[in-house]
Amino acid sequence: MRKNIFITALPLFLAASVFSQNKDSVVMRNIANEIMLRGECYSWLDYLSNKIGGRLTGSPQAAAAVEYTYQLMESIGADTVFKQECMVPHWVRGIKETAKILTTESGEYAVNICALGKSIATPLGGITAGVIEVHSIDELNKIGKTGIEGKIVFFNGAFDETEIRTFSAYGKAVIQRRDGASKAAKYGAVGTIVRSMTNTLDDYPHTGAMQYNDSFPKVPCCAISTIGAELLDKQLKLDPKTKFHFEMSCQMLPDEKSYNVVGEIRGSEHPDEYITIGGHLDSWDQGQGSQDDGAGVVQTLEVLRTFKALGIKPKRTIRFVMFMNEENGARGALKYAELAKQNHENQIAAIESDAGGYSPRGFGVDGTVDKRKKIVGWKDLFLPYGMYDFSGDEGGTDIEPLQKLGTVMIGLAPDSQRYFDIHHTAADTFDKVNKRELELGAAGVAMMTYLLSEYGVN
Amino acid sequence: MRKNIFITALPLFLAASVFSQNKDSVVMRNIANEIMLRGECYSWLDYLSNKIGGRLTGSPQAAAAVEYTYQLMESIGADTVFKQECMVPHWVRGIKETAKILTTESGEYAVNICALGKSIATPLGGITAGVIEVHSIDELNKIGKTGIEGKIVFFNGAFDETEIRTFSAYGKAVIQRRDGASKAAKYGAVGTIVRSMTNTLDDYPHTGAMQYNDSFPKVPCCAISTIGAELLDKQLKLDPKTKFHFEMSCQMLPDEKSYNVVGEIRGSEHPDEYITIGGHLDSWDQGQGSQDDGAGVVQTLEVLRTFKALGIKPKRTIRFVMFMNEENGARGALKYAELAKQNHENQIAAIESDAGGYSPRGFGVDGTVDKRKKIVGWKDLFLPYGMYDFSGDEGGTDIEPLQKLGTVMIGLAPDSQRYFDIHHTAADTFDKVNKRELELGAAGVAMMTYLLSEYGVN
Repeated sequence: MRKNIFITALPLFLAASVFSQNKDSVVMRNIANEIMLRGECYSWLDYLSNKIGGRLTGSPQAAAAVEYTYQLMESIGADTVFKQECMVPHWVRGIKETAKILTTESGEYAVNICALGKSIATPLGGITAGVIEVHSIDELNKIGKTGIEGKIVFFNGAFDETEIRTFSAYGKAVIQRRDGASKAAKYGAVGTIVRSMTNTLDDYPHTGAMQYNDSFPKVPCCAISTIGAELLDKQLKLDPKTKFHFEMSCQMLPDEKSYNVVGEIRGSEHPDEYITIGGHLDSWDQGQGSQDDGAGVVQTLEVLRTFKALGIKPKRTIRFVMFMNEENGARGALKYAELAKQNHENQIAAIESDAGGYSPRGFGVDGTVDKRKKIVGWKDLFLPYGMYDFSGDEGGTDIEPLQKLGTVMIGLAPDSQRYFDIHHTAADTFDKVNKRELELGAAGVAMMTYLLSEYGVN
Repeated sequence: MRKNIFITALPLFLAASVFSQNKDSVVMRNIANEIMLRGECYSWLDYLSNKIGGRLTGSPQAAAAVEYTYQLMESIGADTVFKQECMVPHWVRGIKETAKILTTESGEYAVNICALGKSIATPLGGITAGVIEVHSIDELNKIGKTGIEGKIVFFNGAFDETEIRTFSAYGKAVIQRRDGASKAAKYGAVGTIVRSMTNTLDDYPHTGAMQYNDSFPKVPCCAISTIGAELLDKQLKLDPKTKFHFEMSCQMLPDEKSYNVVGEIRGSEHPDEYITIGGHLDSWDQGQGSQDDGAGVVQTLEVLRTFKALGIKPKRTIRFVMFMNEENGARGALKYAELAKQNHENQIAAIESDAGGYSPRGFGVDGTVDKRKKIVGWKDLFLPYGMYDFSGDEGGTDIEPLQKLGTVMIGLAPDSQRYFDIHHTAADTFDKVNKRELELGAAGVAMMTYLLSEYGVN
């Protein structure tokens, strides 16, 4: 009998598995078709970019984006839409920064710089000093106080172009931008210049967050375009007495009130299991924040629209979150996790899209071995859409605070080759986004959300 | 004893396999590093695009590109560089085409069109006629002579946006462009308009080759921008009596002499086994032919440079071929295969890059089951570089004539989302190419060339 049961049961089991695989393939195909044929994310991004613009935390544009996405989620038909209040830093750039290389023999060269986020201003009239060039914090430490005191430190460590994933090159180089000012101030530097975080040679200075260590004096710090960096490097090689002058009027104002915007579809079978998906609403001020991270915001909204349009009723609750203040504080992310903890929400998984609206190539997955295995097991379902790479474990800054609650972190991983060409610059504008690439990314997030809502993570 | 032999032999076999895998991984890593750090293909493409420009077969620019790449291969240090003479068609566009929609009630609308390659001109003063809109050849056949005679047929079949690979959408729609004129002329049409072959809605008309069937009258045929196509469709819906006027002065001149440009590195162990890699030197005239196919040309040259720079001495002979006349005749491709046959060359495999210099995602492979299996078996070696997809069998137009000789056809398969945005338009210019994406594609071709030259196809 046992043998018979086994023989009978096996095909049934297989049939069920094939059926479920087929059913999921069909739903995923429907999701892709809905988005590729009737997607609205591209026109929403047009609005967010061209009508609202750069959305630095605390700015009127950030406030406008809160209202825009709140109303959009209401009109799309989320079960509930609400805001989560949080206090956010309010840093402003002030008037356009200026800088020049002062050579001893060939006059002055104006170069393009911008203040790094959170930097203090220079004194009125700017700072002029000699320059010491380094390529890493290590090199800075080796030079020490004697060589650095009274000088401007020029961090000129470039991206490692042999890194195929550009985020790996960024990860290695960005330490100069983040920590450089205080590391240099420790040795008596009066300011810092950081080579822009990019693979390209062009004239855009790339801004981004830095952080001061309160143990050391705060010195003004700026990013210089890679063309400017090459010129400064060349001049310093010709004459180490070359000086640098820069003036910035940025300042930190008192904290402001702002919001995450949250939409929700309640789960039909396990409403107490939450899946959070999102991107960040704020951006840097120089461009339109189209790739970083308007793309992630509108892709999140597209998932909501697609679930409603196709009548998908998720078994688990889905939260669509527009996070505030990813770029210079992550206060929205912290607030979201704080409230989730306070309300005892069982946040089983979170997906962030914050690596640009380029062709999706896979997902980073960070969770326990078993949960990771389950999710990576869905990989073949994504292959027809060009998503093959589940090898990474990158989630995203906004979902990271949820990790303490045991949430599986999932990050959409788009093709990264073009991301740092425009990242944190005036060139991060709507025209840099390709409609189909953006939509395919949205389809990827929608498919992953569907599978998570259908099967959970255990 | 037998058992013992087996036990001893197995680890040895495994060790050899692991060793070879490691050696290949190292060579491939070196290839990628050489190209990402010191690649020159991007600056060569700058020259080909901005200094030479669009290289329509028979044009002075095509001739200049022959000389440029000939000299480049000599200076890079190919063992031999030679030209293969061939006679090529010489079609010229003439003065800029004009067109307008003539409504019965709301006046005229100028729209952007361009002649399709090989089309005849309109009579001086243009053609004006009523319009019949169809979306496929089938629909045309159903309407037949009574509905079509004396009219301009407007082929408005759009791309199927649910096709994830845009080349599949192109493949379905392009039949209208290729065969539409004669199919319509068969029923007495006086001209044809074809919706541009693209995923986007914009105002560029996309040219491309068409072919006349000598059994039917030749009628002038043009491509209309998708914005123009939408407008014409709308006007025809408002009033089927809407007319269309267009004027074109294109013409076919007598055949010209031109060339393939071929560089060669002789194989060290199997010089009589040939691996051909290439792209096409000619392009359409409206843009700079940067993605189609300047990218493939400079990637081919980059493979040559990289082999020389790294001192790779291939076991088999490698041919680096700049094919002439892919766009409107493939005469260079036919000549190359004809000479290969005449000279009894054992052309074991051919790689073409003619799908744009975008992030590479894999290769199409077309050969016998065993040969295909061997090549697809190398797949994991390409994964670290983002090339995962070996599922297709697309080779390339220029290498296709070699297939009769038993050559395995291999096509570089880049991400296809952006390709048809600019394909065959004035917008196919150098600024559309990303340096790292172009270089990664070159690295992919170089790695595949290396493996083929090392291991052959049997």
